[in-house]
Amino acid sequence: MYTDKREKRKEDVLVGRNAVYEALRAGHPVDSVLIAKGNNGGPVRRIVDLCGARGVVIKDVSSAKLDAICGGMNHQGVAALAAAHEYSSVAEMLQTAKERGEPPFLVICDDINDPHNLGAIIRTAECCGAHGVIIPKRGAVGLTAAVDKAASGALEYLPVARVSNLTATVEELKKQGIWVYGTAMDGQPFYQTDFSGAAAVIIGSEGKGISRLLRENCDIVVSIPMHGRITSMNASVAAGIVLYEAAKSRMRAGGGRS
Amino acid sequence: MYTDKREKRKEDVLVGRNAVYEALRAGHPVDSVLIAKGNNGGPVRRIVDLCGARGVVIKDVSSAKLDAICGGMNHQGVAALAAAHEYSSVAEMLQTAKERGEPPFLVICDDINDPHNLGAIIRTAECCGAHGVIIPKRGAVGLTAAVDKAASGALEYLPVARVSNLTATVEELKKQGIWVYGTAMDGQPFYQTDFSGAAAVIIGSEGKGISRLLRENCDIVVSIPMHGRITSMNASVAAGIVLYEAAKSRMRAGGGRS
Repeated sequence: MYTDKREKRKEDVLVGRNAVYEALRAGHPVDSVLIAKGNNGGPVRRIVDLCGARGVVIKDVSSAKLDAICGGMNHQGVAALAAAHEYSSVAEMLQTAKERGEPPFLVICDDINDPHNLGAIIRTAECCGAHGVIIPKRGAVGLTAAVDKAASGALEYLPVARVSNLTATVEELKKQGIWVYGTAMDGQPFYQTDFSGAAAVIIGSEGKGISRLLRENCDIVVSIPMHGRITSMNASVAAGIVLYEAAKSRMRAGGGRS
Repeated sequence: MYTDKREKRKEDVLVGRNAVYEALRAGHPVDSVLIAKGNNGGPVRRIVDLCGARGVVIKDVSSAKLDAICGGMNHQGVAALAAAHEYSSVAEMLQTAKERGEPPFLVICDDINDPHNLGAIIRTAECCGAHGVIIPKRGAVGLTAAVDKAASGALEYLPVARVSNLTATVEELKKQGIWVYGTAMDGQPFYQTDFSGAAAVIIGSEGKGISRLLRENCDIVVSIPMHGRITSMNASVAAGIVLYEAAKSRMRAGGGRS
């Protein structure tokens, strides 16, 4: 764990106004820019403008949080998290499915905050033959070095798209004939569900599950029966169980790769 | 992550000869005692003897590793990892199954080293209705605070036993009529496997899978088909997929709790 933290500081965080500005200007993959509250002078505005032009997410954080993230370095109110990989688009994923002659199989992560969980979900999505993972721009963790590490190489092969509005994306997918499956506590048992055909599976966040708006947009809500006394599972384990059931449905139907 | 480390130092590690000796003498739950190489004077020998009497695992570590674990405190060559929970026994698990009128359902972790993975496996085992988790005394991680946190409350309900020799334990389970299922890359598809009846499922370690000796003792080896290009899954996700298939088999057979 000690090594992880050092690696994170070294590889993953750009510290200070100049470093962040130049990285943005040079077009390096940047996951998000962190700005400590109260910083809004000229040099910071210049960074904000560049983020707008490049579509990079800005996050307002407390000065204390920025201190911790930067490990004591002089950050001048600004830091950036480097992206371990470039983002893809939903259109590219659908194109890949078409080229392979497979019905689309997408995984949507609603607000996953733990990098280990997001990485493990991406890894499992790759293993079960999905065409891509969709994450939201705001709130959730992006493709940081920690996510890349937990994905154990899956990011080399599986595209990840980041969208501004998950609900709008889901509505768009439905228009294109893709069935949307949600995961929640009170759905039908996952193993009585047919996931064959064009499918998008939404994985809820660690604490709150799927947001209400997204849930209302699901064609089918599935759940994992709990046989013990605790009431929730790890998000990436739950994702694995449901995604492999989907992979099985698809194989039986001859839809997925064998 | 910063908070985690501080918590770990505060709650989980006893530092110095006296603190460790007194904790052992008072019968506090201790997961393992760490001794820096080259420390074998009288006070350390006294601790080693007490570990022997109480069945506490001793691990030889480098002085540098002990420095890191103790966060710079003066450890005098000795530290102990507190156990978040008391260990149970395999006999107790089998007794629980009997009392519930269910065929035993046990999970065996072969050398899981990542506390997040062990915690997530214990959590999933509880959710899928298993009667207990068996881990080895040596090599693997024990019931530390990090494991407890990742298990998210499951340790309150699910017993965990730590055994000296997993192979001997598996042989004993087989004598008692329990079918032993291993997980590996080249077994039969997990979803074509009947897990109903008395079952123990062995989960392999993150890097190496199941050890050769254990594998030779399996009645059936199952695997999770990989549809992408990467070649392995997260250990706790793989465990979740196989354990829920087992739970499904048991429900259909009327063996497990519904």
